[in-house]
Amino acid sequence: MYSVAVSGHIMIAHSFVGEIFGAAQQLHGATYEVEIELRRAELDGNGLVCDIGLATALLDGVLAEFAYRNLDDIAAFRGRNTTTEFMAGEIFRRLKPKIAAGALGPGTAGALAALRVRLRESPNAWAAFEGALI
Amino acid sequence: MYSVAVSGHIMIAHSFVGEIFGAAQQLHGATYEVEIELRRAELDGNGLVCDIGLATALLDGVLAEFAYRNLDDIAAFRGRNTTTEFMAGEIFRRLKPKIAAGALGPGTAGALAALRVRLRESPNAWAAFEGALI
Amino acid sequence: MYSVAVSGHIMIAHSFVGEIFGAAQQLHGATYEVEIELRRAELDGNGLVCDIGLATALLDGVLAEFAYRNLDDIAAFRGRNTTTEFMAGEIFRRLKPKIAAGALGPGTAGALAALRVRLRESPNAWAAFEGALI
Amino acid sequence: MYSVAVSGHIMIAHSFVGEIFGAAQQLHGATYEVEIELRRAELDGNGLVCDIGLATALLDGVLAEFAYRNLDDIAAFRGRNTTTEFMAGEIFRRLKPKIAAGALGPGTAGALAALRVRLRESPNAWAAFEGALI
Amino acid sequence: MYSVAVSGHIMIAHSFVGEIFGAAQQLHGATYEVEIELRRAELDGNGLVCDIGLATALLDGVLAEFAYRNLDDIAAFRGRNTTTEFMAGEIFRRLKPKIAAGALGPGTAGALAALRVRLRESPNAWAAFEGALI
Amino acid sequence: MYSVAVSGHIMIAHSFVGEIFGAAQQLHGATYEVEIELRRAELDGNGLVCDIGLATALLDGVLAEFAYRNLDDIAAFRGRNTTTEFMAGEIFRRLKPKIAAGALGPGTAGALAALRVRLRESPNAWAAFEGALI
Repeated sequence: MYSVAVSGHIMIAHSFVGEIFGAAQQLHGATYEVEIELRRAELDGNGLVCDIGLATALLDGVLAEFAYRNLDDIAAFRGRNTTTEFMAGEIFRRLKPKIAAGALGPGTAGALAALRVRLRESPNAWAAFEGALI
Repeated sequence: MYSVAVSGHIMIAHSFVGEIFGAAQQLHGATYEVEIELRRAELDGNGLVCDIGLATALLDGVLAEFAYRNLDDIAAFRGRNTTTEFMAGEIFRRLKPKIAAGALGPGTAGALAALRVRLRESPNAWAAFEGALI
Repeated sequence: MYSVAVSGHIMIAHSFVGEIFGAAQQLHGATYEVEIELRRAELDGNGLVCDIGLATALLDGVLAEFAYRNLDDIAAFRGRNTTTEFMAGEIFRRLKPKIAAGALGPGTAGALAALRVRLRESPNAWAAFEGALI
Repeated sequence: MYSVAVSGHIMIAHSFVGEIFGAAQQLHGATYEVEIELRRAELDGNGLVCDIGLATALLDGVLAEFAYRNLDDIAAFRGRNTTTEFMAGEIFRRLKPKIAAGALGPGTAGALAALRVRLRESPNAWAAFEGALI
Repeated sequence: MYSVAVSGHIMIAHSFVGEIFGAAQQLHGATYEVEIELRRAELDGNGLVCDIGLATALLDGVLAEFAYRNLDDIAAFRGRNTTTEFMAGEIFRRLKPKIAAGALGPGTAGALAALRVRLRESPNAWAAFEGALI
Repeated sequence: MYSVAVSGHIMIAHSFVGEIFGAAQQLHGATYEVEIELRRAELDGNGLVCDIGLATALLDGVLAEFAYRNLDDIAAFRGRNTTTEFMAGEIFRRLKPKIAAGALGPGTAGALAALRVRLRESPNAWAAFEGALI
């Protein structure tokens, strides 16, 4: 199994609801270093899992929804805690249909087997979501 | 599948028995950067795999047994080479029952599916142990 | 000249005023990885620039003012843009008098020659402030 | 499951064929940071997955074929694009038979279950190939 | 003194002339992670050393001359070894007049005191050039 | 001013004397990632600060005195605390006369202006010593 990974980052504000979050119930923020890993059983005719230029553009396009935003203001997240693991899942759920629609180029939909989205929030903590694409 | 990871570190002394170890048969030491990754199929009601404050405290508690110690003096390791991979397994075996006993908070025992313990010993080498929690 | 450095991190929200900031005029946030470097011409009798436990505690104490906060709500910063470089300077200005008052232990005030405060805001950008302590 | 990983690096030139590669059709180059991860169900009598000295020597021996080379000049790669993911696969295919022949020491062939080869090409991109050894 | 730093990277091919270079006399290549640090005594009215968006664009513009190129083909480098330290100096010499011409925004020429250009070529080696801007 | 830096690492055991060291009075150990930075005003005829192969060999040669050792057993360190900052100074003091004797190649003694030795002991702490070479 082959993998290719590309990365980007976003800087967001948010707050959490629930006593378990302690001081993180206050409005604070994070830099998320976001890495996406795409897996494929065989390389294409160019010797690629997929074009990393397209993969970077796809990632940046999805991240643009959140970049320089207060996640508390995003309607789709109303009533949810935008934890790092939740955001990893949300980014996965936005990438998956775009990949299925061919955003990573001819022949990639149906060939890319799995996707992992990893968000590093600090030197000491990260979260990820991974799932099948086919 | 979701993952959350937190990290800490310990500074230990030890020596190895066996010609294969060469100069490492001498008493020497290591800084181990220790990362634990916890996997869970679904987030809990707070949007969490588990509380990373609790995960960090659990890790630090287990590492306290080894911190600033000569591992050659630890009775449980008598007759064993405390290699990086061995230590990854030992840390896993200490974490697993604590997680099963609820150390990561209400609803986590039985929900956390797997654990990976990774120890980086140098810029050029690391070792890990992973296993199921349920 | 000797140096010792320790690090910590904070997660904050803020917004900027001025067209030059583009999308960063919106409320967003950052993880700041904060490293402080202390310089001293000669080691003390223990072989130290200073106790890194005390240095870490001093740094964490100063960072506690900002941790999990919206910097826009901090009275001392009213009317200022809390850019990364500004924050490096503010952290320096809070550390300097505490170091002069002996927070890093007996014999350090007057012996520690200089301090550098560095904040990494993303994989691609950091800022710092450095100045003399004596 | 235990893992051990070691790393090295090579500095190579190459060019790609195909419009999808844009400016990378020109002769350019890369530093590849290469990490190999070896997996094994149980430790051997020394407490090892394998000797990391042997693993490093094995990796360096395989990388020597490519070090300080223009990959366009290597006969085995004629007509292929030496992308990062392709190279990960090629390094895997060179390591696997050597491991099967005992290059990682007595008792490792047949015990080492899987191998992952990862090449970081830049701060923003990496590729990998992983496969079974038994 | 304040500092701000931003980074980018290029992937280049080159060869060296001289027996001292050993195998690096052959055509090979490198990924250079390039970081520029700008120093300024006082922040401007916005609280900035300079706009990091402009700094990143300036760096990328200078790096574009080298990106995906064989440095042996660049006329300005004919007869020179394009070592990492040489390239750090060349990038400095291209940035300095652009900064003096105001590329980093109103009020920066004359205020930015110094520039450091650092190129990491591998996990084990980097080179830099620093000089005054005023 | 140009700089070139190379790195290596050692794994050592040691203990400290003095209540200020707390648990670190016990026999423990560390992985030290050691980076040396050499500064020079002008490049030589090959375009070099110095040969990084020679610099790496020089560093490894000096580190060999400490590699896989208990620093408490080294006669030269009897009665001293082998703190990270102390070790940075000791490595500097061993490198300086070798550089003055030409260990970095023809024309380097007298041309290399300064040396900085940095030891990272953990993700959260490092120490350094720097001084003039001429």
